[in-house]
Amino acid sequence: MPLRLLLLSSSRTHGTDYLEHAREQIDWLLGSSPRRIAFIPYAAVRFSYDEYEEIVVKGIGGDHEVMGVHRFDEPVDALEKADAIAIGGGNTFKLVHDLQHFGLMEAIKERAQQGTPFMGWSAGSNVAAPRLCTTNDMPIIEPASFNTLGLISTQINPHYIDAHPDHHMGETREERLMEYISLNPESSVIGLREGSMLKVDGAVMTLEGSAMARYFKEGEEPREYRPGSDVSFLL
Amino acid sequence: MPLRLLLLSSSRTHGTDYLEHAREQIDWLLGSSPRRIAFIPYAAVRFSYDEYEEIVVKGIGGDHEVMGVHRFDEPVDALEKADAIAIGGGNTFKLVHDLQHFGLMEAIKERAQQGTPFMGWSAGSNVAAPRLCTTNDMPIIEPASFNTLGLISTQINPHYIDAHPDHHMGETREERLMEYISLNPESSVIGLREGSMLKVDGAVMTLEGSAMARYFKEGEEPREYRPGSDVSFLL
Repeated sequence: MPLRLLLLSSSRTHGTDYLEHAREQIDWLLGSSPRRIAFIPYAAVRFSYDEYEEIVVKGIGGDHEVMGVHRFDEPVDALEKADAIAIGGGNTFKLVHDLQHFGLMEAIKERAQQGTPFMGWSAGSNVAAPRLCTTNDMPIIEPASFNTLGLISTQINPHYIDAHPDHHMGETREERLMEYISLNPESSVIGLREGSMLKVDGAVMTLEGSAMARYFKEGEEPREYRPGSDVSFLL
Repeated sequence: MPLRLLLLSSSRTHGTDYLEHAREQIDWLLGSSPRRIAFIPYAAVRFSYDEYEEIVVKGIGGDHEVMGVHRFDEPVDALEKADAIAIGGGNTFKLVHDLQHFGLMEAIKERAQQGTPFMGWSAGSNVAAPRLCTTNDMPIIEPASFNTLGLISTQINPHYIDAHPDHHMGETREERLMEYISLNPESSVIGLREGSMLKVDGAVMTLEGSAMARYFKEGEEPREYRPGSDVSFLL
């Protein structure tokens, strides 16, 4: 089965409900038959996994069943019973720590590569890339390694923003990503502004949504991509 | 020899030159005789270590000699020739990676604990704490571990800021630090606003500078400290 991924910058945009801005693409990902979605809530830190599950049920439940993997004694067992996977946003370090701790990193990678529809938002999109290196989050817990799912070969920076940083001695997001590529010239980054997302259908990756994305590669000028652009070269 | 540390939130404040706002405290740290300062430039990413050294010479050189440890075949050898240590700001992950890589983490810890005057700013203050967990920086490179110098027992968050974050879907700095303490209830954090710094003289730690600091501990309301406050309980 071909790869089938949906990687969102954020869970919502200004003035939309949870995952509402990606309704069309989520319908594409999950198809017309009801799915059992294994939901990974481990990016949550200061709210419960149950609360998180509830929010996601409201957002994408409908005809589909959302199963929080935290309800299973062995979270990895949830994948056996599921025919879709969703990873929610929150703190990326907490998420990566727990995915590794529960043996979910390898198991999810395998299932997604076999064609199980996979969606993620924010931290959940971040981990679809090879490494957690381009997260915006604070490293509040140490994961066993920075390696993540590697379902695509470029790095994702969710919530990409052009504005100046929140204090005048800090770097802009662009400066941070330029630092990343200068230390990692073999890698590249796609900065997904809120409202934008990547859709992967087999060997084709498209930029979708309402916002443009900015691409960074060492030795090249940053490039802008419009929604609808074919960005398969980043797969 | 008693511990002698100076830990700055930032290298400058609005309208001051490099390290100028801490002139009085730096004079206290280094004393009246000329010092040979081992300077650690490894937090730099997109500018050279030589350039960094030059900036620091201008900032705190004067009567003192500033030796960039990058000039030594074995950077750790620079410590033998030095009677003070300074760690500059930049990217904390790059700094921690290189300190561990060159065997400097243990060597600096030992020297500072023996009473060698130590100063750091931004990332350089961050690593004086037990772990890198409360940095604001992007994890652009994976260090061998998150463990840092542990010269004090509380975590430092440099460039602490009250403002709302740079995009409306993100967390405030306070929310990020609350996430840290909720996952690490045995730990605590002092958020150093720009212009503030910690001065450690033996068993006494004082908040210095022109800005207040905010303290976070799981299960307690965040607390504000004014410059001049004795915060030795965080040592």
